[in-house]
Amino acid sequence: MHKICVIEGDGIGKEVIPATIKVLEATGLPFEFVYAEAGDEVYKRTGKALPEETIETALDCDAVLFGAAGETAADVIVKLRHILDTYANVRPVKAYKGVKCLRPDIDYVIVRENTEGLYKGIEAEIDEGITTATRVITEKACERIFRFAFNLARERKKMGKEGKVTCAHKANVLKITDGLFKRVFYKVSEEYKDIKAEDCYIDAMNMYIITKPQTFDVVVTSNLFGDILSDGAAGTVGGLGLAPSANIGDEHGLFEPVHGSAPDIAGKKIANPTATILSAVLMLRYLGEYEAADRIERALEEVLALGLTTPDLGGDLNTFEMAEEVAKRVRGE
Amino acid sequence: MHKICVIEGDGIGKEVIPATIKVLEATGLPFEFVYAEAGDEVYKRTGKALPEETIETALDCDAVLFGAAGETAADVIVKLRHILDTYANVRPVKAYKGVKCLRPDIDYVIVRENTEGLYKGIEAEIDEGITTATRVITEKACERIFRFAFNLARERKKMGKEGKVTCAHKANVLKITDGLFKRVFYKVSEEYKDIKAEDCYIDAMNMYIITKPQTFDVVVTSNLFGDILSDGAAGTVGGLGLAPSANIGDEHGLFEPVHGSAPDIAGKKIANPTATILSAVLMLRYLGEYEAADRIERALEEVLALGLTTPDLGGDLNTFEMAEEVAKRVRGE
Ligand SMILES: CC(C)[C@H](C(=O)O)[C@@H](O)C(=O)O
Ligand SMILES: CC(C)[C@H](C(=O)O)[C@@H](O)C(=O)O
Repeated sequence: MHKICVIEGDGIGKEVIPATIKVLEATGLPFEFVYAEAGDEVYKRTGKALPEETIETALDCDAVLFGAAGETAADVIVKLRHILDTYANVRPVKAYKGVKCLRPDIDYVIVRENTEGLYKGIEAEIDEGITTATRVITEKACERIFRFAFNLARERKKMGKEGKVTCAHKANVLKITDGLFKRVFYKVSEEYKDIKAEDCYIDAMNMYIITKPQTFDVVVTSNLFGDILSDGAAGTVGGLGLAPSANIGDEHGLFEPVHGSAPDIAGKKIANPTATILSAVLMLRYLGEYEAADRIERALEEVLALGLTTPDLGGDLNTFEMAEEVAKRVRGE
Repeated sequence: MHKICVIEGDGIGKEVIPATIKVLEATGLPFEFVYAEAGDEVYKRTGKALPEETIETALDCDAVLFGAAGETAADVIVKLRHILDTYANVRPVKAYKGVKCLRPDIDYVIVRENTEGLYKGIEAEIDEGITTATRVITEKACERIFRFAFNLARERKKMGKEGKVTCAHKANVLKITDGLFKRVFYKVSEEYKDIKAEDCYIDAMNMYIITKPQTFDVVVTSNLFGDILSDGAAGTVGGLGLAPSANIGDEHGLFEPVHGSAPDIAGKKIANPTATILSAVLMLRYLGEYEAADRIERALEEVLALGLTTPDLGGDLNTFEMAEEVAKRVRGE
């Protein structure tokens, strides 16, 4: 029995999550779904965007499946990542047939450090109209994120990928913080002689994801750089409607689409469930359910290739109909 | 007579700058070119990447035309921008015929704040393996960069553009620093009722430059965000070989291609001179030489459309041959 904490949150979270649950149920695996609240709505009602109960449920379950939060997103998701100590934010960038992508051969993963950098929340107004934010980079956090990235590259190499990690930083300007980041990267790379290691500037990297995305395997970077880079990368493979993510730590896993609550389309049932379904696929792999994960991904691939999609991808199905097309194939119907 | 401080710098700087000088000379305008040194080579010889003499020449001339620096780039260019107080880094993103672009109708300008943010150089190792960098955002710097952006949008509106400024920030996470950035943006926007003002998150913006670049006019953002965003944007309109930039202040102007010294292709005379020629076009406009600027841009457009280009764009000309094709047309031959 897998005990899953399910947080629908706000806006289209209330659509893409139930749609994804249907797909998960289609696998026939034994799940216990424990529902918890977070986001704008519960904030309005209780004054807390991330209630204690939700935190306890999240800590208690085998994994968390998260939809989206509205205005309160930063308070909910950054805090949850922190509390669960999910230090690796894993964001696959993959071209699927039937989806408008820059190239058909894009298939890499962005690993974003998830605990420090400018997300530490250390800010101050030190004088009127003069404000500061402190970017924190520590050797300890660097070591574990780089090991995570190299281990992932090893896993991928077993599946036929190149076996390469690219570290993106700005060590020419941020000489101390990203100097450390880059130095620790090459130090850790020594433990992984079977994996290629290369580094590049984050600005150049942001161009390369457009001009030569097919050359990457695993890309590792710091928190805010990863935030910015992964949205750009999503843009090259069909947009946020398709971008899943996994927040992984030593004790916990939190899975969420990269997109937000999309108030402009919420309630219309036109939200693309793909990003959330793919996040559930990542969750199943995290739970060791590889066969079921593959089954869902293959079903989804077929549905995308057939154009059985929501309007953003040119189809005419609604969120639940698209998910049902996936679920049917997962059930083998 | 326009007195121009010319800094070739390292690598392909020594190719794209002389090529561009030929194009500038073709205009028939009276120039005095004062050559100055900066970069790795002078650093190796003298221990200074940016010699005092160069700084004095730069301060003394009407404008600076800069090629590229190698390893020392950050020390040279960030320092020069600072010394000249060129607070606005202006990076046009424009699709030209004959160049592989995401769309043919891309035509916007990124205005990057050029004096603060994480480029302040305030870094420390506060304990072993624990490092910090301080991001500084001040009301004063915000005000002048936003006024610059709105004034630019006004200029562009006169030339038929939409008249819109989009402010990209991360105020959901950087609540104090980017909270200030966003607040000052809307405050300044009140002075420009004829120009539309909108804001968005920098991560979303990094996707929009791929998924809807045709919708932007002027995009304004902070220093490092602008650095990352503008390389991505360059990738959507043919790459760094085509990306020019202007660093503008109240007293000085510094013009440079966005690309670096490209040691891998230096000396081969295959570097694309377009980015530097377009930077010279921006310089001419800064100097009030609108007719000559237009003449060069039209000549370059023709040369690109005809495929009379360097190999990176599929042509078979070298750097100087391509520049000569432009110069010929500027001379009216
Ligand atoms: C909502 C926001 C706080 C979040 C982030 O910045 O990490 C989002 O942009 C993301 O990428 O998951
Ligand atoms: C060379 C480097 C310091 C510079 C920057 O970061 O500003 C470059 O990337 C640029 O965009 O002009």
